[in-house]
Amino acid sequence: MSDTTEKPASPARIEFETAPERYRHWRIAVNGPVAELILDVDENATLLPGYQLKLNSYDLGVDIELADAVQRLRFEHPSVKVVVLRSGKDRVFCAGANIRMLAGASHAHKVNFCKFTNETRFAMEDASEGSGQRYLCAIQGTAAGGGYELALACDEIILADDGNSSVSLPELPLLAVLPGTGGLTRVTDKRKVRRDRADVLCTLEEGLKGKRAADWRVVDKVVPRSRMEAAVAEAAARLADQSDRPADAQGITLTPLERTREGHIVAYSSLRVEIDPPSRRATLTMLGPDDAPPEDAAAMQQQGARFWPLRLSRELDDALLDLRTNARDIGTLVFKSAGDPARVLAYDAFLEANRTHWLAREILHQWKRVLKRIDLTSRSLVALIEPGSSFAGTLAEIVLACDRSFMLIGTEKGDNRAAAIMALSPLNLGAYPMSNGLTRLETRFLGEPESVDAARATIGSALDAASCEEAGLVTIAYDTIDYADEVRIFLEERASFSADGLTGLEANLRFAGPETMETKVFGRLTAWQNWIFQRPNAIGPDGALKRYGSGVKADFDPERV
Amino acid sequence: MSDTTEKPASPARIEFETAPERYRHWRIAVNGPVAELILDVDENATLLPGYQLKLNSYDLGVDIELADAVQRLRFEHPSVKVVVLRSGKDRVFCAGANIRMLAGASHAHKVNFCKFTNETRFAMEDASEGSGQRYLCAIQGTAAGGGYELALACDEIILADDGNSSVSLPELPLLAVLPGTGGLTRVTDKRKVRRDRADVLCTLEEGLKGKRAADWRVVDKVVPRSRMEAAVAEAAARLADQSDRPADAQGITLTPLERTREGHIVAYSSLRVEIDPPSRRATLTMLGPDDAPPEDAAAMQQQGARFWPLRLSRELDDALLDLRTNARDIGTLVFKSAGDPARVLAYDAFLEANRTHWLAREILHQWKRVLKRIDLTSRSLVALIEPGSSFAGTLAEIVLACDRSFMLIGTEKGDNRAAAIMALSPLNLGAYPMSNGLTRLETRFLGEPESVDAARATIGSALDAASCEEAGLVTIAYDTIDYADEVRIFLEERASFSADGLTGLEANLRFAGPETMETKVFGRLTAWQNWIFQRPNAIGPDGALKRYGSGVKADFDPERV
Repeated sequence: MSDTTEKPASPARIEFETAPERYRHWRIAVNGPVAELILDVDENATLLPGYQLKLNSYDLGVDIELADAVQRLRFEHPSVKVVVLRSGKDRVFCAGANIRMLAGASHAHKVNFCKFTNETRFAMEDASEGSGQRYLCAIQGTAAGGGYELALACDEIILADDGNSSVSLPELPLLAVLPGTGGLTRVTDKRKVRRDRADVLCTLEEGLKGKRAADWRVVDKVVPRSRMEAAVAEAAARLADQSDRPADAQGITLTPLERTREGHIVAYSSLRVEIDPPSRRATLTMLGPDDAPPEDAAAMQQQGARFWPLRLSRELDDALLDLRTNARDIGTLVFKSAGDPARVLAYDAFLEANRTHWLAREILHQWKRVLKRIDLTSRSLVALIEPGSSFAGTLAEIVLACDRSFMLIGTEKGDNRAAAIMALSPLNLGAYPMSNGLTRLETRFLGEPESVDAARATIGSALDAASCEEAGLVTIAYDTIDYADEVRIFLEERASFSADGLTGLEANLRFAGPETMETKVFGRLTAWQNWIFQRPNAIGPDGALKRYGSGVKADFDPERV
Repeated sequence: MSDTTEKPASPARIEFETAPERYRHWRIAVNGPVAELILDVDENATLLPGYQLKLNSYDLGVDIELADAVQRLRFEHPSVKVVVLRSGKDRVFCAGANIRMLAGASHAHKVNFCKFTNETRFAMEDASEGSGQRYLCAIQGTAAGGGYELALACDEIILADDGNSSVSLPELPLLAVLPGTGGLTRVTDKRKVRRDRADVLCTLEEGLKGKRAADWRVVDKVVPRSRMEAAVAEAAARLADQSDRPADAQGITLTPLERTREGHIVAYSSLRVEIDPPSRRATLTMLGPDDAPPEDAAAMQQQGARFWPLRLSRELDDALLDLRTNARDIGTLVFKSAGDPARVLAYDAFLEANRTHWLAREILHQWKRVLKRIDLTSRSLVALIEPGSSFAGTLAEIVLACDRSFMLIGTEKGDNRAAAIMALSPLNLGAYPMSNGLTRLETRFLGEPESVDAARATIGSALDAASCEEAGLVTIAYDTIDYADEVRIFLEERASFSADGLTGLEANLRFAGPETMETKVFGRLTAWQNWIFQRPNAIGPDGALKRYGSGVKADFDPERV
């Protein structure tokens, strides 16, 4: 199989942390309530060797900066109400994902790359829906493939009418793959383009421009180049008027993560990750807060990035991305916790009490996104709820995100810590919807809504292992005689299964109930794209990705499957 | 790639038409309002060489008989209110899809097999929801994998509590693939089993039995073997009470299809299929009715399987299955029609007026299913609406099912036929929902519901090409100067694209809007399964499918993707 043997050169470790002063491809220019986010790719600053980022095309490195910029605009610039996304180059907006990068990348890299870029596009939409920071896309030049998909993630798209500017999704005709960064789904479900017109768009290499682009709703407006700046300013002012972001708030700085890496241990301030390659497991232990929550919102703002919930969420997010990308043979993530569950609940109460404050709101949305990132991580997820743990409220949500959860009844001899408990907080009831639009409790109890009510009635109470099992909050509780063996057997068995089979299984079982544009992108669209990324017509030696730019047309097997 | 080179021996042509007197694997026993549908597989009567159907396992041949039985129970036995599905063997219910068959089958055969079996499971659910013929599954012995998935398609499952009878989904642990015949989706979304329990079920080779199976809702009831017959009779009587099927109606016989095959032409009574391998196209021309509709329901019943709407639907269904399975290099289906559109509308009006009659109801549901089969056909679908065509009402629905539609304005010189028109009937407004639960008009006009209203206002009117284009019912209308060239260019271009890319593209663009259990099975679940069916961990020389039964464990690449 070409796929598993072909693992091209890649840097020792892909880092997801960055900061504007290190950006090579993006610029942020804040001007009162409007910020410009400018894509100006340095074609030589690639993440992997073997390609150049011509025509504002992107690789994972460019997208890591984008994700960082979207995040910082929310936390560091609370008064920004509208982000205008545009190109720093004259005749091109963005040529999408770099084709030579895709052609040279392993299957796993392609899949990971697509997942991260999709998460980032949804983060843009979340900024708009969740906290009123709207995105406006101004296209001068060509927006092709992923370039147009970037625009699709914005609230509005204005296209210059100059004979050159266009939007296109040429993936199928050029490369035999799909517009997989949400393109297909957003065209039909967000912009609600008629399906036969969407079919035309997706098979037309040169795409659409001018009046037809607006008539078909693939953009919101076309304006002559001379009117472009005025039209963008007008739309930005209108979108800013709709925003509820505070006019005068001070942002906080997302300071560098506290992180040390020693061998297989990554230590953050509130999170410890132990990677164990022989067993193909990583254990993530989250530490509860050391102190009580701050007095008030001003004190929270004063703490800034050190505020425990924000700090832990950023550390957890970084750890997940690191494991996904840099530890691909690790098949199971084991979540543990330590600390005082009452304190975790106190922080939850604090956030709940201050949820209209811009910063508390941002932190709740940030946790929502990190929890979604857990849901979408293609690793087996298991929670171990043991003495001394702090799985309460927001941290209990991680237990609910897991494929399995084991809870120890009582304590081992000689263990002075209190027996494990779990506790729910009001935040478990709606602050953190999954991508299917339901809470994890609602998804879990789809067949017995009365169990959601029963769980609600326990809010704030410490539930011991028997109560948690009875309430259905954990998979199973074992006493000290059986616990260690049962957990060990489970983990060993899990490691013996096919990695791909588990990925498909978990991607299905985790998302019961309704589907949304988000689940459609990560379920339907992504699954089909991953299939295509395995097919010779795309990736074989005579396939379109390999032959692209060679002057020789791809040689397709016509068989329909 | 092992996949494309390995095309194992297969019969010259797989036939989908069968009849009870030719069944090798199923028996139907009708006893008043209750029928028994008994699975008793002849292990030597396989569709392909190289395996035996041990333990009531199945291949496509077994499922073709099941699909036929489900169909005949509806049409030939209107007074049957409950179908009891059971095994004819003593210690086994059904071992699911035959593993050696899967291991030896090409990728295309596996994918086609799964699609057809899934369609058949939904046909069982449609019989229950659509026309009150409920399915009750009585399990004595083991129901493994596809065996349990067969049970999941029933309304109720009764499991014998005898220490032996069990239900299981061992696909992942045994074969490194998914329970892909709806298993994952029905466990979480139909039976609403808690996700961590579903995860236990899907990783436990031996499955569940007894009390736990009922407590976890994987079955509805467990009863001691001695009580089994009484419990089944009790449940059947209760389900029969809920049914609105007529007690005394006479069925009609689904007589053999009129079909002749000569070279690349398949001629049915109301449908002509011309296959053109060099261009990779098949043209399906549907013929409108020769006569006016019958006087009344009794006369319709008298006509039986000759009644035009039923006849055409069965022929179209057979042609679709034939093309999908036996003409896999044919990438585009071109739909044409001929006849008098007013007569088609008259038949629609007749069905609409008689929709409470059991037979008319069955025929409407049958058309719904055939139209869904079109939606789910992984070929490019194009409608050509030309002079002399009869795309009205039910036949217009096929235009709406297509990826593209072209309409000729006026007539070519020398053509005496009337210029093409289209017309809608009340049946376009709700009789034929897609699997997303919306009508094709609603799906098409998701972004402009006012266009659905406008279309409704045209019901019964003959719309010329300009009006159809204006109303958005066709992709584009061309005059005689451009039409032939534009259609030719489109078809040639389509044939030049990657077959797999088109499959993925169409599977996304066709299903805008909400998702249902049905779209989840054909989108999310199937797409992941198809991906897994390409992965070395499942199908490689050291993968689980190839190594099954060899005594040597599969050797998995642990990389998570």
